[in-house]
Amino acid sequence: MIDLGDTPFLEVDLDKVERNIARMQRYCDEHGLALLAHSKTHKLPQIAALQVAAGARAVVCQKLGEAEVMQAAGITDILIPYPLVGEAKVRRLAALAEHARVTVAVDSPEVARGLAGIEVDVVVDCDTGFGRTGAQSVDDAATLAELVDALPGLRFAGLMTHPTPADGEFLAATRREIERRGLEVGRVGGGGTPGSLRTHTHPELNELRVGVYVYGDCRTIAAGVIEPEDCALRVRTTVVSRPTATRAILDAGSKTLTSDDGPDGYGLVVEYPDARLVKVSEEHGHLELSGPGPALGEVVTVIPNHACVVSNLHDQVVVRRGGEAVEVWPIAARGKVR
Amino acid sequence: MIDLGDTPFLEVDLDKVERNIARMQRYCDEHGLALLAHSKTHKLPQIAALQVAAGARAVVCQKLGEAEVMQAAGITDILIPYPLVGEAKVRRLAALAEHARVTVAVDSPEVARGLAGIEVDVVVDCDTGFGRTGAQSVDDAATLAELVDALPGLRFAGLMTHPTPADGEFLAATRREIERRGLEVGRVGGGGTPGSLRTHTHPELNELRVGVYVYGDCRTIAAGVIEPEDCALRVRTTVVSRPTATRAILDAGSKTLTSDDGPDGYGLVVEYPDARLVKVSEEHGHLELSGPGPALGEVVTVIPNHACVVSNLHDQVVVRRGGEAVEVWPIAARGKVR
Repeated sequence: MIDLGDTPFLEVDLDKVERNIARMQRYCDEHGLALLAHSKTHKLPQIAALQVAAGARAVVCQKLGEAEVMQAAGITDILIPYPLVGEAKVRRLAALAEHARVTVAVDSPEVARGLAGIEVDVVVDCDTGFGRTGAQSVDDAATLAELVDALPGLRFAGLMTHPTPADGEFLAATRREIERRGLEVGRVGGGGTPGSLRTHTHPELNELRVGVYVYGDCRTIAAGVIEPEDCALRVRTTVVSRPTATRAILDAGSKTLTSDDGPDGYGLVVEYPDARLVKVSEEHGHLELSGPGPALGEVVTVIPNHACVVSNLHDQVVVRRGGEAVEVWPIAARGKVR
Repeated sequence: MIDLGDTPFLEVDLDKVERNIARMQRYCDEHGLALLAHSKTHKLPQIAALQVAAGARAVVCQKLGEAEVMQAAGITDILIPYPLVGEAKVRRLAALAEHARVTVAVDSPEVARGLAGIEVDVVVDCDTGFGRTGAQSVDDAATLAELVDALPGLRFAGLMTHPTPADGEFLAATRREIERRGLEVGRVGGGGTPGSLRTHTHPELNELRVGVYVYGDCRTIAAGVIEPEDCALRVRTTVVSRPTATRAILDAGSKTLTSDDGPDGYGLVVEYPDARLVKVSEEHGHLELSGPGPALGEVVTVIPNHACVVSNLHDQVVVRRGGEAVEVWPIAARGKVR
């Protein structure tokens, strides 16, 4: 156990995590959607296991290194939803695919050809407006599906996009075109926690990839999909300076909370919701007070703007059950940039 | 050695590091300034040792955990330039002070009293306009200096501020007032790489705390204190998608580069300076091209916006000598949030 008086540290409320997992799983079950759970939010095999036990079809890993950690911890169905490029990545993917059922996304013929020979499911990534990766047209996506189907090892499994677009016509048209060419389109996946609870209004989708739902953060509070009291990931931080009546300085800055922006400042101070975390230095948070604020030495709790990047900064997380700190978990997939 | 084809990874050019260290040390020596080198930029005991060997008087650590790593690696003079609050921190500071000469900053009577009994040098932190920590008035600072002098263990050593303000009158007046009260003001320190080369125009200062100078980054390029070719810290990243003629997607996003902003986008692509890194997703960089750009699979080099926070994301760094990758160093003080 770490010294809970020695801040800042990250903590997770496992009761809230389980409720958040159950709620999203119930939503997906009710609407016949497969839930695929992103491990990028927590980077913890323990929570990935809870997601799978609750009914998640697979764990989604944003990096091969993250997938390797999850597989080693017993996760057996993994989706890597971005193009894997280069000999080193292909070699590692082949090794991973020997120990787990792996699905990968491709968005170009070059990437698909690079994977030839590996026994993996493949989904074609479609750019439905976000402007990141993905095939740019129905014809490109359909031609890529045919190529995947023709290459050894690869099994064409369906389509994916990120995030779920308001207009589903690109995916629907691509599905029709691929079926017209004689291939089956098993999976069509959308993603993103902010729009997650509207996925059932998109009849073109049968899969939902979600990550942040497990914790919640200021961004998803602002999106209306979680309440502050259900947010499971928090940072405990101490007031180390009270230079003026309207200013308190916390020992948590961008190296603890990141500089990812949110609806209002750099996080929500649970005990002082009117206080505004207006700025983060590397190691300090600048709290602006309009009324009574925390005293020098007081420990306060911050819900971060963006849970995924905060998990990636910390080596360990304090785990709470029934409000009590019961364990410290190493964040096993933290920092897996490759 | 890590597989240099397996991106993204962080690399540091040790020849450039040594030139950057020598240049800043020469500037300080010429102007009779003590150089205090921030380890927060690199988080590497190896580079801290180079800074001390070149003439740095002390190593500046933004967290006690960082100081513990540096002390364990042989650094013997350490400044912790922010208030240490709470029993756990005080206990750790006392242990550290048994093995190194330690200076700490205080900005309130409560913090000073909390440190009583520990054998440390103490500087009084003054808020000269930045609006973070620090005494708010000449009288507050002088009274705090007297308290420090009266408390057991603590040795009043001088004043510090961050960053160096345009107007030095607060520090000069505080010095006069403390001397009037019969105490000696040995050290008066300013800081910040962007304004570092103007420190000699501030006669009130005799110390300069600097961190980023050792690497350089897009922010310090914009401040005019380093050229891109002298920037020693870079991220190597692969183009994993070329969805359109004007878009390339890199396998480095905010979990590799952070989302800290800079003068233009999220970093400078060395091989394609006209390409703009307009957006970072967690694991992808969005490159906007106006002319020829990198091909799918091509590995490119990015100078990040802010070196300090990038070092804090990576477990290891590839070290180059004479352009050749010669070693991989663990980033020993990475993630020391406490």
